[in-house]
Amino acid sequence: MAGNSFGQLFRITTFGESHGEAIGVIIDGCPAQLEVDLDYIQAELDKRKPGQSKITTQRKESDTVRILSGVFEGKTTGTPIAMLIPNEDQRSKDYSHNVDVFRPSHADYTYHSKYGIRDHRGGGRSSARETAARVAAGALAKLLLKTQGIEVIAHVSSVGKIDAPNVDIHNADQFIAEREKNIVRCADPATAEEMIEFIDNVRKQGDTVGGKVSCYITNCPVGLGEPVFDKLHADLGKAMLSINAVHGFEYGSGFDGSEMLGSEHNDRFITEKEADGSTKVKTLTNFSGGIQGGISNGMPIEFKVAFKPVATIMQSQSTVDAEGNAAEIKGKGRHDPCVVPRAVPIVEAMAALVLADHWLRNKTVKLS
Amino acid sequence: MAGNSFGQLFRITTFGESHGEAIGVIIDGCPAQLEVDLDYIQAELDKRKPGQSKITTQRKESDTVRILSGVFEGKTTGTPIAMLIPNEDQRSKDYSHNVDVFRPSHADYTYHSKYGIRDHRGGGRSSARETAARVAAGALAKLLLKTQGIEVIAHVSSVGKIDAPNVDIHNADQFIAEREKNIVRCADPATAEEMIEFIDNVRKQGDTVGGKVSCYITNCPVGLGEPVFDKLHADLGKAMLSINAVHGFEYGSGFDGSEMLGSEHNDRFITEKEADGSTKVKTLTNFSGGIQGGISNGMPIEFKVAFKPVATIMQSQSTVDAEGNAAEIKGKGRHDPCVVPRAVPIVEAMAALVLADHWLRNKTVKLS
Amino acid sequence: MAGNSFGQLFRITTFGESHGEAIGVIIDGCPAQLEVDLDYIQAELDKRKPGQSKITTQRKESDTVRILSGVFEGKTTGTPIAMLIPNEDQRSKDYSHNVDVFRPSHADYTYHSKYGIRDHRGGGRSSARETAARVAAGALAKLLLKTQGIEVIAHVSSVGKIDAPNVDIHNADQFIAEREKNIVRCADPATAEEMIEFIDNVRKQGDTVGGKVSCYITNCPVGLGEPVFDKLHADLGKAMLSINAVHGFEYGSGFDGSEMLGSEHNDRFITEKEADGSTKVKTLTNFSGGIQGGISNGMPIEFKVAFKPVATIMQSQSTVDAEGNAAEIKGKGRHDPCVVPRAVPIVEAMAALVLADHWLRNKTVKLS
Amino acid sequence: MAGNSFGQLFRITTFGESHGEAIGVIIDGCPAQLEVDLDYIQAELDKRKPGQSKITTQRKESDTVRILSGVFEGKTTGTPIAMLIPNEDQRSKDYSHNVDVFRPSHADYTYHSKYGIRDHRGGGRSSARETAARVAAGALAKLLLKTQGIEVIAHVSSVGKIDAPNVDIHNADQFIAEREKNIVRCADPATAEEMIEFIDNVRKQGDTVGGKVSCYITNCPVGLGEPVFDKLHADLGKAMLSINAVHGFEYGSGFDGSEMLGSEHNDRFITEKEADGSTKVKTLTNFSGGIQGGISNGMPIEFKVAFKPVATIMQSQSTVDAEGNAAEIKGKGRHDPCVVPRAVPIVEAMAALVLADHWLRNKTVKLS
Repeated sequence: MAGNSFGQLFRITTFGESHGEAIGVIIDGCPAQLEVDLDYIQAELDKRKPGQSKITTQRKESDTVRILSGVFEGKTTGTPIAMLIPNEDQRSKDYSHNVDVFRPSHADYTYHSKYGIRDHRGGGRSSARETAARVAAGALAKLLLKTQGIEVIAHVSSVGKIDAPNVDIHNADQFIAEREKNIVRCADPATAEEMIEFIDNVRKQGDTVGGKVSCYITNCPVGLGEPVFDKLHADLGKAMLSINAVHGFEYGSGFDGSEMLGSEHNDRFITEKEADGSTKVKTLTNFSGGIQGGISNGMPIEFKVAFKPVATIMQSQSTVDAEGNAAEIKGKGRHDPCVVPRAVPIVEAMAALVLADHWLRNKTVKLS
Repeated sequence: MAGNSFGQLFRITTFGESHGEAIGVIIDGCPAQLEVDLDYIQAELDKRKPGQSKITTQRKESDTVRILSGVFEGKTTGTPIAMLIPNEDQRSKDYSHNVDVFRPSHADYTYHSKYGIRDHRGGGRSSARETAARVAAGALAKLLLKTQGIEVIAHVSSVGKIDAPNVDIHNADQFIAEREKNIVRCADPATAEEMIEFIDNVRKQGDTVGGKVSCYITNCPVGLGEPVFDKLHADLGKAMLSINAVHGFEYGSGFDGSEMLGSEHNDRFITEKEADGSTKVKTLTNFSGGIQGGISNGMPIEFKVAFKPVATIMQSQSTVDAEGNAAEIKGKGRHDPCVVPRAVPIVEAMAALVLADHWLRNKTVKLS
Repeated sequence: MAGNSFGQLFRITTFGESHGEAIGVIIDGCPAQLEVDLDYIQAELDKRKPGQSKITTQRKESDTVRILSGVFEGKTTGTPIAMLIPNEDQRSKDYSHNVDVFRPSHADYTYHSKYGIRDHRGGGRSSARETAARVAAGALAKLLLKTQGIEVIAHVSSVGKIDAPNVDIHNADQFIAEREKNIVRCADPATAEEMIEFIDNVRKQGDTVGGKVSCYITNCPVGLGEPVFDKLHADLGKAMLSINAVHGFEYGSGFDGSEMLGSEHNDRFITEKEADGSTKVKTLTNFSGGIQGGISNGMPIEFKVAFKPVATIMQSQSTVDAEGNAAEIKGKGRHDPCVVPRAVPIVEAMAALVLADHWLRNKTVKLS
Repeated sequence: MAGNSFGQLFRITTFGESHGEAIGVIIDGCPAQLEVDLDYIQAELDKRKPGQSKITTQRKESDTVRILSGVFEGKTTGTPIAMLIPNEDQRSKDYSHNVDVFRPSHADYTYHSKYGIRDHRGGGRSSARETAARVAAGALAKLLLKTQGIEVIAHVSSVGKIDAPNVDIHNADQFIAEREKNIVRCADPATAEEMIEFIDNVRKQGDTVGGKVSCYITNCPVGLGEPVFDKLHADLGKAMLSINAVHGFEYGSGFDGSEMLGSEHNDRFITEKEADGSTKVKTLTNFSGGIQGGISNGMPIEFKVAFKPVATIMQSQSTVDAEGNAAEIKGKGRHDPCVVPRAVPIVEAMAALVLADHWLRNKTVKLS
């Protein structure tokens, strides 16, 4: 109710502030008997952690995760799984300047107004540090989905006005391998280079820039998603919009689709023979983005997430303080010039959480 | 859990199929003592009902709502409010052709696969007729918000590639009056004419076209929205994406914001004197769309919703049947060439439901 | 949140006041493909309806149920099932005396204080008439459970100080048949006669009396119930305590068990050969009431529910009015001298709702 | 959904196994600005911890609680509060005997059957050790209630067949002080001595015994509790029944009330002058237990909870193993001969959690 939980059957609750003792997450509803690959979970966290490259924040945190419960002899037991990530590199004094001054386009003013009290250090609860807990939980969701062959893969498809061309999504491992070869996490090598250079220039000016992440879910079975309000894309949309700095979500044809005619946009059904001799219903095009009537139709699920530029810039800005007086503020500390390279694992994690939840929910919808 | 409920404290549950006996909604959690203006609720429904003009479906349904419970002597009592809208103009035989054939880009195939049974008549539960129940409930939410001075207003800002210029949103009554002067529900008269002509041409070709609805929430208090997962824009996004045919959602700077620099995008805080002598914190720009850290900041909330073209077209299309055999299908019945004029009250209703819910939720977040 | 919904996956929401237009229920989450026997549902309602015999209220309502949605060609479709029961015999003037005077041990004072407004006619929302909606929904839950062989059976085991001996519960049909032979719904014929005579005498004195209902769930599979907070008996307990006039709940050894020694109370496990040659783990005794650690263990589930005497008596009582002034009140209208005969189907319905919910919930707890 | 969360607005989620690394709880929805008295929370935990006296288990755990988040400069911030209690004295080898053998009247068999895997050490998740997390969270709920003057007090009212007389509940501090003078936690000194002697004798025989805890909530405002399903006593009942070993719950007149006549049982309203000159509506008797129609009426809330005898006894018992073969088992380790002395703080904690939740829920039920 207070907004720190997500999911219905596969449900997570996160806690922790940026500069508190630790952040963490409880996963309730993960089925018993799932093998827990802790190395995989840590590797996912490593993709989100600060200090990875010259185009991310220079803060150093190992973001080492510990599992406190719910796993016995390497497998889930059906009981809640608590994961803890201690906070390490807390230079809280970097934030002493924003105790009483509201940083533009941050959550300082709204938290202050809503609660009348806030942990101002590093943005407290509003810090994107909270998303580390999501990545840890999402990694477990991915392990669950992998038992069904479902893959969730994302990459940076735009930085500023630089857009990547469409890339092949059918081999998930290859897609990830290609993406991880560059520090901006774009699966198209040529575009990646351009993006990196652009971000580095923006960083040198003390500025920041936005971007987009494209995500694909392959091998998704038909039938996931609950009408009416919990349509699969509605839950994916909420999941993405809940990530810090996200300002937009579209799936399938998205905003462009609103400019099309029905005769262009409709996805014609066909029947295809599979390798094993069975037949499968597919569509010739995929403007539906793999979802029809809110329910997955077996085609790849495709969506795109727009991130605004990071609000903390190394330039002086006018603002007001808690008394409403005019003030000046300039970013200190160590911040990302562009959030999307580190956002890729977060987008994947949130998508995996939605899919895991709907995969479980779909188990009870019919008798036979 | 099965997805037919929405909201936490102000919570609705809808029911009903397109060609069943009735559709309806239960609203649970509406505070007691709210005056219920049934004429207002009916007027909202009238904006969504079919048969309004030459650019909407020619089906005729009065969509007359009855309140069965929860209201006593004109006021809410705090108990659940059931609203019933009987179905009237059911030409179910118009749908006999799609018993066994899956209409392209409809929910026939996915419902069939998910449940193994479906009420095929008029799309059954997947029909946009379900949104009438949302409009009825949303009208009540609007009445609740009006007691606080909060207004939710929307209009058609795009049809196909025709975009309306920005319009003045500060006088809600005037905005609505302007919008209601034309059948496409665009608050800019010149653009409206262009849109109407375009839709009428598309209709004559048996085709359909998509569009966008822009929505504004004015006079919203600071503090609505719950971090982390239930950010105000995340719940608005889910609400919009749960509406039939929606493929995209953005708020504030939206997708364009992802191309901007932080130095351009940051909204500087200022203090302004109000008419009553008090001071109020505002921002010079509103790229944040009235929401920071997931919490309303007192500036107008602004978002945009993209609708794909209606899937039912009066042209022959190839598809498959329930056995996977190739088939042909052509739309029959009476359908909308463009959904956005009738979508305006639905967007407003869903936004009002989100706001009413978060207004109530915000009542318990602090002690004093 | 406002308390009018029950269950997680098999979830009902009820609405309606005693003297409003109708009462009803939405069932969301019933699996698709369940055959809906409307006669069975109506027969369950008939066991709860007023005017059945000399020891129930003489009000006459047919309590005829209509299904408005979610059922197609006799089967559930997976979409919400709305059931409507119009109100018929509303002598609201019987209640004009309690507009401003608080009836002792009724909900008049608390509703008045909580909401500041109430529909006083017939108790409004606090009337036990609301339970008809539960019985309708519970009948559907029973149909679902019957597909798994699970039976929910209850009878009146006490009226005042008259207690029935233990009865055989292994043949559900026979148990029900025996119980329905008498108007007090006790499966022991001799005790039934005694109970009926006693209630009739109480009635003649314008008084009322309490009683107890015992309920049994047979053929329940092992594994239903979710630790920690949603233990099967905790959810059964809440379900029963939510029924009007219930003041106590116990399962298995119950209150008596608190006086026993562990060496007496422990249920020893044994292995028994089944008719089909398989072996089954059972317990020699069943002080656990079929539930261990909150999870069903395959033994019959047994619990008991205590009902206080009906508050409306045909005798003059002192009370206060809405201004706090002393007042006199005497029951008018047509009321039950003892609630338990009509409570039997309500207890069964609520138990069936809990079991159906947990049966669905148990489908997602492990991978294999 | 998986049952490890409790409450709606004041919501807790617990995690951890008896012999894992730690147990803990996240509290989401505690209002901001509450002063957090960590000493008070620890003192509550100390009342539940093992090793207190000769009539409790001799296990030694300090049960030291750490707060990881949600508190800043001594006050709650409105963000989730994570509390961690590391496990210390884990003699897991004491439990090696029950890896494959099901202990009678324990949860071994049902967990094994439900999940197909379990952490058998010390009962794993089914251990009453989990309740330490509830006590920590409940202590915070009590601090919240104390800001409103609401007190939650309980004591041992029965051990076996030894019943305490009614005790004065009007001075909460005095009640607690009296109760804490003896190791059995009964507020009547003479009965306490008798109980202690009896438990000690039972312990010497390697046996265990059940008992009852009575709980009172004083100074509760009128209006808490949500009809229809979330009646205050229904939520209290579920809370109590979710505690390990509880087999029964009754409030007000309880089971005895089912034997009474309406003319005896009805609580007559009166108006009393308060010390400050105002008038207050009260009832002459309190068979309603402070709750009418599921809503608190301002009188003391009174309920009783029945605990079965602890299942682990130091005597040899017959049972079966995981293959269904006959086996013998005898309790090892360090266990409680009677659970009620340590259950008192658990009962209070769960009651406080229910009250805190309903106090928040009641803030949104009416407009003015």
